[in-house]
Amino acid sequence: MNVAVLSIGDELLGGRIVDTNAAYLSAEVTALGGVTLVRMTVGDDRGDIFEAMRQLAGVADVVLVTGGLGPTPDDLTRFAAADLVDGGELLDDETAMAGVHAWCKRAGVPASEARLMVGKRPPSSSFLSNDCGTAPGIQVVSGGANMFMLPGPPLEMQSMWRRHARPLLEQMVEPRHAPIEVIAAGLTEVQAADMLGDLLDRDRRPRLGIRVGRGVVRVSVEDPIGDLGSDTMTGCAAEVRDRLSPWSLGVGVASLSEAVGEALRRRGWMLATAESCTGGGIGAAVTSQPGSSNWYSGGWVTYTNEMKCRQLGVPSELLCETGPGAVSAEVVVAMAQGACEQSGADIAIAVSGIAGPAGGTEAKPVGTVWIGLVIGDEAEARCIRAPGGRPQIRQTTVDSALQWVRWRCAGINETLPWEVNA
Amino acid sequence: MNVAVLSIGDELLGGRIVDTNAAYLSAEVTALGGVTLVRMTVGDDRGDIFEAMRQLAGVADVVLVTGGLGPTPDDLTRFAAADLVDGGELLDDETAMAGVHAWCKRAGVPASEARLMVGKRPPSSSFLSNDCGTAPGIQVVSGGANMFMLPGPPLEMQSMWRRHARPLLEQMVEPRHAPIEVIAAGLTEVQAADMLGDLLDRDRRPRLGIRVGRGVVRVSVEDPIGDLGSDTMTGCAAEVRDRLSPWSLGVGVASLSEAVGEALRRRGWMLATAESCTGGGIGAAVTSQPGSSNWYSGGWVTYTNEMKCRQLGVPSELLCETGPGAVSAEVVVAMAQGACEQSGADIAIAVSGIAGPAGGTEAKPVGTVWIGLVIGDEAEARCIRAPGGRPQIRQTTVDSALQWVRWRCAGINETLPWEVNA
Repeated sequence: MNVAVLSIGDELLGGRIVDTNAAYLSAEVTALGGVTLVRMTVGDDRGDIFEAMRQLAGVADVVLVTGGLGPTPDDLTRFAAADLVDGGELLDDETAMAGVHAWCKRAGVPASEARLMVGKRPPSSSFLSNDCGTAPGIQVVSGGANMFMLPGPPLEMQSMWRRHARPLLEQMVEPRHAPIEVIAAGLTEVQAADMLGDLLDRDRRPRLGIRVGRGVVRVSVEDPIGDLGSDTMTGCAAEVRDRLSPWSLGVGVASLSEAVGEALRRRGWMLATAESCTGGGIGAAVTSQPGSSNWYSGGWVTYTNEMKCRQLGVPSELLCETGPGAVSAEVVVAMAQGACEQSGADIAIAVSGIAGPAGGTEAKPVGTVWIGLVIGDEAEARCIRAPGGRPQIRQTTVDSALQWVRWRCAGINETLPWEVNA
Repeated sequence: MNVAVLSIGDELLGGRIVDTNAAYLSAEVTALGGVTLVRMTVGDDRGDIFEAMRQLAGVADVVLVTGGLGPTPDDLTRFAAADLVDGGELLDDETAMAGVHAWCKRAGVPASEARLMVGKRPPSSSFLSNDCGTAPGIQVVSGGANMFMLPGPPLEMQSMWRRHARPLLEQMVEPRHAPIEVIAAGLTEVQAADMLGDLLDRDRRPRLGIRVGRGVVRVSVEDPIGDLGSDTMTGCAAEVRDRLSPWSLGVGVASLSEAVGEALRRRGWMLATAESCTGGGIGAAVTSQPGSSNWYSGGWVTYTNEMKCRQLGVPSELLCETGPGAVSAEVVVAMAQGACEQSGADIAIAVSGIAGPAGGTEAKPVGTVWIGLVIGDEAEARCIRAPGGRPQIRQTTVDSALQWVRWRCAGINETLPWEVNA
């Protein structure tokens, strides 16, 4: 089943809202075993909507349209649909009209011409009832394509889709496997592609898709045709996980924070954090997971030198002009040791770095971050040089710290992303 | 200036991610004084990308393309661009190739064929440099349309747009007042619309646009025709700010974190934080601002009861079974007092709450958060009941804490969003 999605609205083209409807419908189509071929967005213009409908009906089996079904003068979807299938004609749907009259009576408002507009449809169409609002959806067949026109407000759209459109489409498709996702943290898209090698060939099945976002690489294992067995799909996902080791977080794990929590929980270790340049970002990431009090004691944001000394017992000699300075191996180890001792945690991670834009020097340019890890008497420090601006440097630091904790729990000893010899 | 936006990627059509790039670019085009006529999304297919480029170049003056520029086999934008303008030919860009070789050397990885792919471009194109990643953008002219191809990852795309594409487009449009944005934090879109009242009339000039995102309401003051004087525009922006007071953050302020930093800086106060349910999120938000060491001492993430007692001196009686418990006015005040004393800061904010999904009770359901604020001998606590799931509850808590600090600095005494009598 090949699908096209058409989103209608000036508010979309003006950039005032993000089109979550298109993503929702695409995900639903994928889950059903269909393929979204193309998506389009046009504004509140009868001619533009008509042209887009005509074009998409020519390339897809199913066209899903959202928006422009309401009662105001900028709602033009029903007119464009009428242009497409009935030469512009609209008729009053008796059932729908009775519904609008009843609604207006209940609400104590007049059944104005505008309100009654939602009871009109092209003669050869049928209505899809709206359980969350007043405007029904419209279904037509044009150029061999089944077209479903759904309301723009996401809750109304989703409800109508689930109750009335999806059941019709389910009868049109063969069942097939949903894609499996494998997530990896701390490597770039290119590194992941190198490690996956021939698995990425475009004509290979299952087919892999790679995308990056918020510090992780997501590899989806997909079956575009739909006749692969479950074992082939999960076998391929396991192969992806193995090739991306030690960066991959396992099949079905959604984030680095989740993987770190799982690794700590398995060890039965409590974590403490001591942060400077990330300002609390590592703690915030760890506690994004429900139940994190089972593996996280807490931490310190020692943003000033005074806080580092007073709260974590970092020797002030390290921070004075003749010492190695706040961004150094010695200081992050002292911070992590202090955090372990003060909190009674089993493992502590500490970071101190130059997130910029100011504060860089030739020896320690912006992006230089020291990370310290302490478990009992064991202490280690590593230096990374993170790329990008302030937000990226801080995010990379959070991810590197979490990855290191996860590796240490799992007994993995690898070079961190962006690690340098310093 | 008529613009078309083309988004490329199987991950979009599969519904695995929401296309925020298209909304971002549409908003930017609007801000520049241009109009987005149409948007399209196609998958990672060379022929589909080519067809979409050809179609859009035929209808718009400018085509903005995102995605498919990376080095992996499913990145096909450069090939489609070459098909469009140079019969499929690609050449090695010497400058870009040298950059890739240098990058690989620094990173200690081989300059593989895949990596070098990002140094190739159609002969009649030019590159747009990438300050946040390795893949440059590509600019071509086809069918009278200027086409800008930008990377898919939002941070890279936005940076390249701001630095390299937008300045070129600015020269293509008639100069006119850029919209002025007024940001407000802690109220809903409907509340903002009520407070703005008649200013929102569609035929009024300047015209206002409202959009919401990440906890803030953004009101843009726009001049669709372009003949309004500077005074009229700034006067309207000031009126918007006044009507949305005390929620508005001032004209030209980009975030609540920035507004809090500015408010603390004006007072000459240092802030300390003591966080439980937000796990470091308040500290991370405050330190997202460059120079934040001028107004932020640091803080504590006292996630366990033991940490609250040991690090911040919260009396253990408050936390035992007969006491008010960790989520109470008494505990957040004690946390904030401890943070003030330990850090020597002028003002401290503390939060403790139930972020869920577990841990709620009838008296303290999920979403219940106490916030304490201490300045010297002055201490106050407020309770909010935040809506949504764990991420939303934590974000609302961070925003409420920051808003309260800002208000206290500015001498504003208002009820916090979601505040309840408890």
